[in-house]
Amino acid sequence: MKSFAVESDGENQVIDVTEEVQKAISAADVSDGVATVFVVGSTAAITTMEFEPGLVKDFPAMLGRVAPKSGVEYEHQRRWHDGNGHSHVKASLVGPSLSIPFVDGELVLGEWQQVVLVEFDIRARSREVVVQLMGE
Amino acid sequence: MKSFAVESDGENQVIDVTEEVQKAISAADVSDGVATVFVVGSTAAITTMEFEPGLVKDFPAMLGRVAPKSGVEYEHQRRWHDGNGHSHVKASLVGPSLSIPFVDGELVLGEWQQVVLVEFDIRARSREVVVQLMGE
Amino acid sequence: MKSFAVESDGENQVIDVTEEVQKAISAADVSDGVATVFVVGSTAAITTMEFEPGLVKDFPAMLGRVAPKSGVEYEHQRRWHDGNGHSHVKASLVGPSLSIPFVDGELVLGEWQQVVLVEFDIRARSREVVVQLMGE
Repeated sequence: MKSFAVESDGENQVIDVTEEVQKAISAADVSDGVATVFVVGSTAAITTMEFEPGLVKDFPAMLGRVAPKSGVEYEHQRRWHDGNGHSHVKASLVGPSLSIPFVDGELVLGEWQQVVLVEFDIRARSREVVVQLMGE
Repeated sequence: MKSFAVESDGENQVIDVTEEVQKAISAADVSDGVATVFVVGSTAAITTMEFEPGLVKDFPAMLGRVAPKSGVEYEHQRRWHDGNGHSHVKASLVGPSLSIPFVDGELVLGEWQQVVLVEFDIRARSREVVVQLMGE
Repeated sequence: MKSFAVESDGENQVIDVTEEVQKAISAADVSDGVATVFVVGSTAAITTMEFEPGLVKDFPAMLGRVAPKSGVEYEHQRRWHDGNGHSHVKASLVGPSLSIPFVDGELVLGEWQQVVLVEFDIRARSREVVVQLMGE
């Protein structure tokens, strides 16, 4: 198991972690298999996107329409008063895990397809991302 | 392959299955690898969340805004008249599968991060959850 | 690693790829494990659904409400003018990857649960789908 830390600045930041995942493969004695990328915690998520300045705004904006920070009453808020009910439901929707095949030591991503961590919590967080490699 | 049954009470129930997944790992002769958790069927889903009484309402509520039970005409309904078009699209959106690394025989989940099955069908169902362990 | 090509007709087409994934398993010398199905690129996604003429319309329709083609200003559009900002965010939401256990050489899918590729781009595309098999 490999893992690395990601320091987020706060809500809706999208962070490109492709290089860290690729490094984990390069450092291991495997050439063909699957990399499972998993973020520990319930207010962040992992997916892929074209990592460019427009989409890193558009993706959180879409999720903000689905689970707005204000204008919806969250039961989580009524019980815990921590202001991040919308963060939790977005993280569960996108999901904490992504499995990506690699071949000849390289992730099979498209040219404009990066692996990203999306921070949904309402403050800066230190995130642990686990990369588990299966293969040979 | 391991599998276990989950009996749901009906629409929008969120069920914590973490212990069953962890048991499958503990019962197997593996310490490091990936557990793939998969729900069989097209009207339920698997994800992670902080399993607490607020969020188990907030998550289905969000999805109910995305795919309302009434007020939207579903083509599935026009053809099959089984009343669960909204259940199907929500299940496809969240997804039936989750891959979670484990290390030293323990899932690498956060303290407030549980593996959950979400029932979207409009009636109680008996669900089969498959846990496939890869590792050594 | 196995891969196959899928030719899509354009936006919102849902294509059943179950048989191709199953064929990859049957052609390999494995009976028990996990198939990771991954679409290369950032404007298509992989999930499961009951593949029937109603839901193949309902699922894209739901996503069109979440990320409409018009009526929302996408930052991607302001920068790149390629008309597919909505395609990108929907692909990131559904996700490019799916891990499905197989047992005795057969995917553990439900009877009405197929593996599908969803095309979100605004034109016909040739897609590469990678199937990575782990198991024995």
